[in-house]
Amino acid sequence: MSKVIAINAGSSSLKFQLFNMPEEEVVTKGLIERIGLKDSIFTISVEDKKIKQVLDIEDHAQAVKLLLEQLTTQGIIKSLNEIEGIGHRVVHGGEVFSDSVVITDEVINQIEELSELAPLHNPANITGIKAFKEVLPKAPAIAVFDTAFHQTMPESSYLYSLPYEYYEKYGIRKYGFHGTSHKYVSERAAELLGRPIEHLRLISCHLGNGASIAAIEGGKSIDTSMGFTPLAGVAMGTRSGNIDPALIPFIMEKTNQTADEVINVLNKKSGILGVSGFSSDLRDIEEATAQGNERAELALEVFANRIHKYIGSYAARMYGVDAIIFTAGIGENSDVIRERVLKGLEFMGVYWDPALNKVRGKEAFISYPHSPVKVLIIPTNEEVMIARDVQRLTT
Amino acid sequence: MSKVIAINAGSSSLKFQLFNMPEEEVVTKGLIERIGLKDSIFTISVEDKKIKQVLDIEDHAQAVKLLLEQLTTQGIIKSLNEIEGIGHRVVHGGEVFSDSVVITDEVINQIEELSELAPLHNPANITGIKAFKEVLPKAPAIAVFDTAFHQTMPESSYLYSLPYEYYEKYGIRKYGFHGTSHKYVSERAAELLGRPIEHLRLISCHLGNGASIAAIEGGKSIDTSMGFTPLAGVAMGTRSGNIDPALIPFIMEKTNQTADEVINVLNKKSGILGVSGFSSDLRDIEEATAQGNERAELALEVFANRIHKYIGSYAARMYGVDAIIFTAGIGENSDVIRERVLKGLEFMGVYWDPALNKVRGKEAFISYPHSPVKVLIIPTNEEVMIARDVQRLTT
Repeated sequence: MSKVIAINAGSSSLKFQLFNMPEEEVVTKGLIERIGLKDSIFTISVEDKKIKQVLDIEDHAQAVKLLLEQLTTQGIIKSLNEIEGIGHRVVHGGEVFSDSVVITDEVINQIEELSELAPLHNPANITGIKAFKEVLPKAPAIAVFDTAFHQTMPESSYLYSLPYEYYEKYGIRKYGFHGTSHKYVSERAAELLGRPIEHLRLISCHLGNGASIAAIEGGKSIDTSMGFTPLAGVAMGTRSGNIDPALIPFIMEKTNQTADEVINVLNKKSGILGVSGFSSDLRDIEEATAQGNERAELALEVFANRIHKYIGSYAARMYGVDAIIFTAGIGENSDVIRERVLKGLEFMGVYWDPALNKVRGKEAFISYPHSPVKVLIIPTNEEVMIARDVQRLTT
Repeated sequence: MSKVIAINAGSSSLKFQLFNMPEEEVVTKGLIERIGLKDSIFTISVEDKKIKQVLDIEDHAQAVKLLLEQLTTQGIIKSLNEIEGIGHRVVHGGEVFSDSVVITDEVINQIEELSELAPLHNPANITGIKAFKEVLPKAPAIAVFDTAFHQTMPESSYLYSLPYEYYEKYGIRKYGFHGTSHKYVSERAAELLGRPIEHLRLISCHLGNGASIAAIEGGKSIDTSMGFTPLAGVAMGTRSGNIDPALIPFIMEKTNQTADEVINVLNKKSGILGVSGFSSDLRDIEEATAQGNERAELALEVFANRIHKYIGSYAARMYGVDAIIFTAGIGENSDVIRERVLKGLEFMGVYWDPALNKVRGKEAFISYPHSPVKVLIIPTNEEVMIARDVQRLTT
């Protein structure tokens, strides 16, 4: 039995989950927030209890040291030697990485070079990688990329109809994100359906604060709604998704903002927040809708409508669909959104049961048994995918 | 019997078509090009012959005078009094015009105010309106808007998920274009299907150098692929259609262009031209594809793939579809594109006959008689729609 730790490092945070492998048993998990700020917060689960400490953590290296100390002092592990591998989530693998990879100095350089494509995320991911390398220099580490699963998309899906040299010179293409999640739920769906994934056409709806839809044929992503960045595709909590590109200069002129500032509005102040005017949190929106708030109702409808249309478009993309999967915060928990997304899809063989749809946060079929197209809820688990890849690549 | 003339004025051109109404018989038609430039070209059809003259035409007023002179000198009409109405195509009617309208001074002002939304087109359209007003001050004139048909879209279709005040303050929303064409083919489809339009769900594919798809339910547009401007939606001859909005600042930085310059690239150097690298004309692309040119093949596939996906998404939007319509240059003539667009849609009830699909430029069913979803080719006729509206609004 070996222990493997999955890490998701942000610019001021670090999420961790420690597994016994190959059992995939979660030994502990937690979160370090406000790294580099006053009053950092360290939270760790120990035997069903959550221990929370507020203290000053200067940087990611100190955060990692503290985490490893806690693992031993809390009696979760006896020695750091028990940790046989570390898996790091990395947002952007560009066209370089179509699978997870053992981290070498060259890999770190490559991830750094790709920072241009993900300026907010890749540098933070590298900080996490380096912090672990400093504290646990001998433990093998691997990188798991959010983009890797989508590298199987054919050129006609990933290419924008822009001047072709933009692709050749600047790497401008659709990359797609949430790949680890889409991969996890598609593999799990094949198990739940009891059919080989090679024979399945799946539409996976990862609906969280960020949201993306993927068309997965024979276990391979062949199209996805996010694009060059995670801004594209459907409307999200605060992100606009696709809009008419000609709006950018129009908004710049009208609001006296730079292009970067407009994109910031599209990332931070649009989506459900922009339409509703008061919240990016779908739970607030559902509550307000129930109380008759029209702008909340509109936000809900805009959000669901875009996803609904993507399902139609990806069914067309694969010449039909065998199952539709809902995952992530909203996908797993909001029966209201699932109902609006699925409404009227009988014409393509989707028959679902409003009673079954009432489920929250657990694996379930919500389609009728006779429905040609199955509909499943599958809580996502990116951490276990990372742990599996550590096992696969280091043993 | 009355004569009605339909006018489409561009910045340096003026297209005209003269009808006997209500017979809808085309008496003559033609085109004046290079207005305001050296060597303007005047082309007019007289009894199956095309007469072409090269001469200097200073402005639209002079072009209109010349046109009216020719109508009498060529013996097409005896007196200008025979022209009982003029119909002008106007690109942008904003939220002000949801139908064609008799042109008054106030209407001209309103069209001028809407120029902000269509800076290239509305001013040219006004030039045409004013030129006719000068020469034929007494003849009633009406404006037919490209956007009017789409004014029936529900808010959840036309609203972008941007800050709501952008809609309230700046009119930022989806307007849609090609409305006169989508309206014409949807009405004609109902006739050919022998069913009341109120009971039909239609997807209309207007595929010309510009291209847009519309979802038409009960005779009303409820969604369309173009947006705030005609740049949005599917890939076109030289237009990109939708891309990740975050690409605008990225391309600006990489290529050292302003936002307006980038949008110009998206309008003029993208789409089929951008991907193929050599032509925006689909006939060139089809020829090169047949000779094994890979980039041409890619351009063809990118173009068809986006339309194919829109059909899926609009079928979902209407909870199914009764007929799919192809129109405009490519839609009427390219069996290659229609084949790629329709391929694999059997799952939603679309069964079509490759032999019937060989047709070019005329009304035809290409679906099998047993196909639940019908597929039709209908040559568009925006001019007759304009003439009909002149009749409807002036008599």
